[in-house]
Amino acid sequence: MLACQTTIHSDVVIDVPPETRFEGRSKLEQEEAHRFGDIMLRPGSKPYVFDPLSKKWFLDLPLPSLADNVGDMERVYRELRRKSEYPVMQTGLYNIRRLGRLMRETGWQITATLALRGKTVEVVQFEEGDTSVRNYGVAVDVGTTTIVAQLIDLVSGNTVGTEASYNSQVWFGEDVISRIMYCAEDQGVEELQRYVVSDINTLISALVEGNDIDLADVTYCVAAGNTTMMHLLLGIDPAFIRAEPYIPTANQVPAIRAAEIGMTISGRGLLQCMPGVGAYVGSDVVADILASGLHQDGALSLLIDIGTNGEIVLGNSDWLICCSASAGPSFEGGGMRCGLRATDGAIERVAVTPGGKIVYQTVGGSRAKGICGSGMIDLVAEMFRAGYLEKSGRFRTETEIPGLVDGPDGLEFVVVPGNESATGKPLTISETDIAVFLRSKGAIYTAAEALINHVGVRFEDVERVFIAGGFGYHLDIVNCVTIGLLPDLPLKTFHFLGNGSLAGARMALLSTEVLQSANLVASRITYFDLSTDSMFMNRFTSSLFIPHTDLENFPSVVVSQETPCRT
Amino acid sequence: MLACQTTIHSDVVIDVPPETRFEGRSKLEQEEAHRFGDIMLRPGSKPYVFDPLSKKWFLDLPLPSLADNVGDMERVYRELRRKSEYPVMQTGLYNIRRLGRLMRETGWQITATLALRGKTVEVVQFEEGDTSVRNYGVAVDVGTTTIVAQLIDLVSGNTVGTEASYNSQVWFGEDVISRIMYCAEDQGVEELQRYVVSDINTLISALVEGNDIDLADVTYCVAAGNTTMMHLLLGIDPAFIRAEPYIPTANQVPAIRAAEIGMTISGRGLLQCMPGVGAYVGSDVVADILASGLHQDGALSLLIDIGTNGEIVLGNSDWLICCSASAGPSFEGGGMRCGLRATDGAIERVAVTPGGKIVYQTVGGSRAKGICGSGMIDLVAEMFRAGYLEKSGRFRTETEIPGLVDGPDGLEFVVVPGNESATGKPLTISETDIAVFLRSKGAIYTAAEALINHVGVRFEDVERVFIAGGFGYHLDIVNCVTIGLLPDLPLKTFHFLGNGSLAGARMALLSTEVLQSANLVASRITYFDLSTDSMFMNRFTSSLFIPHTDLENFPSVVVSQETPCRT
Repeated sequence: MLACQTTIHSDVVIDVPPETRFEGRSKLEQEEAHRFGDIMLRPGSKPYVFDPLSKKWFLDLPLPSLADNVGDMERVYRELRRKSEYPVMQTGLYNIRRLGRLMRETGWQITATLALRGKTVEVVQFEEGDTSVRNYGVAVDVGTTTIVAQLIDLVSGNTVGTEASYNSQVWFGEDVISRIMYCAEDQGVEELQRYVVSDINTLISALVEGNDIDLADVTYCVAAGNTTMMHLLLGIDPAFIRAEPYIPTANQVPAIRAAEIGMTISGRGLLQCMPGVGAYVGSDVVADILASGLHQDGALSLLIDIGTNGEIVLGNSDWLICCSASAGPSFEGGGMRCGLRATDGAIERVAVTPGGKIVYQTVGGSRAKGICGSGMIDLVAEMFRAGYLEKSGRFRTETEIPGLVDGPDGLEFVVVPGNESATGKPLTISETDIAVFLRSKGAIYTAAEALINHVGVRFEDVERVFIAGGFGYHLDIVNCVTIGLLPDLPLKTFHFLGNGSLAGARMALLSTEVLQSANLVASRITYFDLSTDSMFMNRFTSSLFIPHTDLENFPSVVVSQETPCRT
Repeated sequence: MLACQTTIHSDVVIDVPPETRFEGRSKLEQEEAHRFGDIMLRPGSKPYVFDPLSKKWFLDLPLPSLADNVGDMERVYRELRRKSEYPVMQTGLYNIRRLGRLMRETGWQITATLALRGKTVEVVQFEEGDTSVRNYGVAVDVGTTTIVAQLIDLVSGNTVGTEASYNSQVWFGEDVISRIMYCAEDQGVEELQRYVVSDINTLISALVEGNDIDLADVTYCVAAGNTTMMHLLLGIDPAFIRAEPYIPTANQVPAIRAAEIGMTISGRGLLQCMPGVGAYVGSDVVADILASGLHQDGALSLLIDIGTNGEIVLGNSDWLICCSASAGPSFEGGGMRCGLRATDGAIERVAVTPGGKIVYQTVGGSRAKGICGSGMIDLVAEMFRAGYLEKSGRFRTETEIPGLVDGPDGLEFVVVPGNESATGKPLTISETDIAVFLRSKGAIYTAAEALINHVGVRFEDVERVFIAGGFGYHLDIVNCVTIGLLPDLPLKTFHFLGNGSLAGARMALLSTEVLQSANLVASRITYFDLSTDSMFMNRFTSSLFIPHTDLENFPSVVVSQETPCRT
């Protein structure tokens, strides 16, 4: 029954489920903000000290006199060293030039912003009076398909807001390889850089305007992403990532002035890219690991980052091994006709009722515009359970499937009829869409399986599985297992990280110790190159089924398959 | 007898005294270059390790492979750390961007230039192949009146050449105070900065062109000068140096990229200003001290830097005290009608013969263009000995003085008649010139005397007197004592440093240890403010005589005064 069909006879209290509220997205942010606290205190992992990469110190300086006549800059340094231990401080000429007048015009009351830059601390800016309560940072997850930026209050540690958009570089190719190829064009690197920086700037603008914050108070940015994305963000040619022996130009890039790449935070603010490991194990993986805490945990853990590049980490506090697989943009709504990023109006949950009705929920509760990754997982799993799909992912044409129509690409299933959708056109899923999607899920599963086999353990030995990706908390684990994306393990084994890349970047922003750990973690990770795994292609082919050709690995799915529809 | 009056009858060997050769200036440079070595090994002072601020390392890098797949930058760092202990290395994005292609195009053979930047080491540039034998630095003495630049081979430690010019800022005022006042004008700081940087660039151009060196191989510059000059060089407003309590904006300015102030060395090369002490004790004094080694010596030493600002240091390895006095530009040929910097054609030595003839020697041996500081000292001393001058510096009109004529400013003495000079006009010295000159010498002497009295010692207690300034080795100590510029001490007490500011800057260029010592020395120096000395003005007035009103302090002068002419 729809709300509009209800007649109100007396006073009522209407309980709107949070996920259907208009502010559903900001709800998600709040959850993530709290989760950061949880991670900091997660049992088994060491809590990190709150020690942001950028700090503002208000300085009420003693007036100079003939007896106390040190230079202005030396007076500032002396005062800063009274407040904190800064062994190596640096200050740019730009700030020194302004200092003398600023100090005298403000009655010797100024605020200095100190930011970590490698093993040194830089005085990035001086301001009039006491602005120490206004200091913000931005954590950015630079995904191949999606970019997410989060504004963090560096004084309280709170998350102020989160914004996401597609990475405009998709115009130049959906995956990292096509982007790298585009870089061979004249000015290709610069062009791709401009696009990604412009995307990030748009997100930052939305964040500061929406929260009434001055850009000049955003003094630090931490970015995480795969190695190619980090190269392109910095304007470094990623050409050599693609050719054997697959060498990035830099894995541990030093902090730079954000303005140097055109990023519009404070003109003197810094940008630190999280450290990466190699050509196909980027800083997003390192951020994931930090967010999960698996590097501090004795228990064997598996981390699966579901994105355009799927990354898998296996390990514990003693060892870490990682591989990556190109999954394509399916999980971020790319590569399929009705695919959509998990944004307002994206179908994020779907079920097929025993009566054959489609029930769905959209992000923000608005009219459906498309289907995002978690929606696709639900849809494929539910259609399979309903008996609409063969193991191969084809429609069971011998069965009566309500909503199956002939479309331009052949048979397609109507998820939302045109009169219900935001676009006025039906939202459908074709056999081609499903085939693309199965390749994506198969790549992820097979990569995880290959890593497990390589190390010589079994999925059953894994005590925790961390799921990272842009899904928020809406991923249905049972459905993930049903389609063969995740291994068939007890439900309690799985832990959602949400966007681990973003969470790790945010943690680094809030704790110098985290950034230092990130460098250690990056240097500890062993890379397992799937292209050297002789079994991989065979196993991948077996994975292009629902859930898999090896059904003995998916005992729970076989059971549920016997029941055509979930009740 | 002049050379042109000689008739040659057979083969002859003509011995041209070095100081009259055309290449006299470059002779001076060679002497100074050797002297640097002497200073390094001066008995009583610790020798410094040769360890230039900028070093080139040729890297023959191991080729990457699937087994050795660290990033390009990490490969460079790994190799550099095998060569030297670099705890904190930094590399700018500009260099990282170029690295991948450069390494592959040059067959993994590149040269990295590493330069000290504060407590870190910066990889300032990467070059193709092995360029490690080509690495140069520039030491610059930024004087209020004169700028001297010296090109140093950072591989051998040799001095390649020296060039000097007036500081074009003189158009805006002769002393630091008038320059500071000019800074109050709109864009005044920027204008003065442009002038001094342009002067330095001109000198550097002359040095590299004259020695067939590529500007890109000049990777470091160390500058020394008084605090106002350093502020203006860096474009920092010196306004607060002038107003009580006389606070510079920065005494210990961090190294910056030279290009940031428009200095034309390698685009990535660094500029380090030597550390200063305070508003009126600049980095030139610190450089002087380093060049003299007095900070390492148990013996009580006095250092007198004779320049537009006269600086006096008293101390030993335990303590250092310093004062400064505004002497005016007399010693650099400024402020007098026929004054000239110690450049080609400047009269640097003068004597009055018993017969009343003027005998002189010019820099480079060319026709006389003017009179430089050492020439003025000789001239005044000799005229005094010849009985031409009263103690007050006035002409003894009761005596017959050959060459005394009436000029536009009153009586003037013809040093070089018009038919002998380069300009065709006579070079003369007037009573006004002498009065200006006596104020200059009086300021220096009185400052030294005040410092000695303040500490409670006597001139006789001083074991070494170091004389610094742009005089080279042509200063006649006896004449300096005769006019009352220097205290009347045994000749062996005096040691010439030459341009100590330049020598100290060069030493820092060649030894990281020297730069570190400079910071220590700067922090050890106590400043004695002459304006707080109640006796100073009285004593200064007494010093405006030849040699002084207190003749008992100048016993040797009284003796020589009895002999009207030196034989």
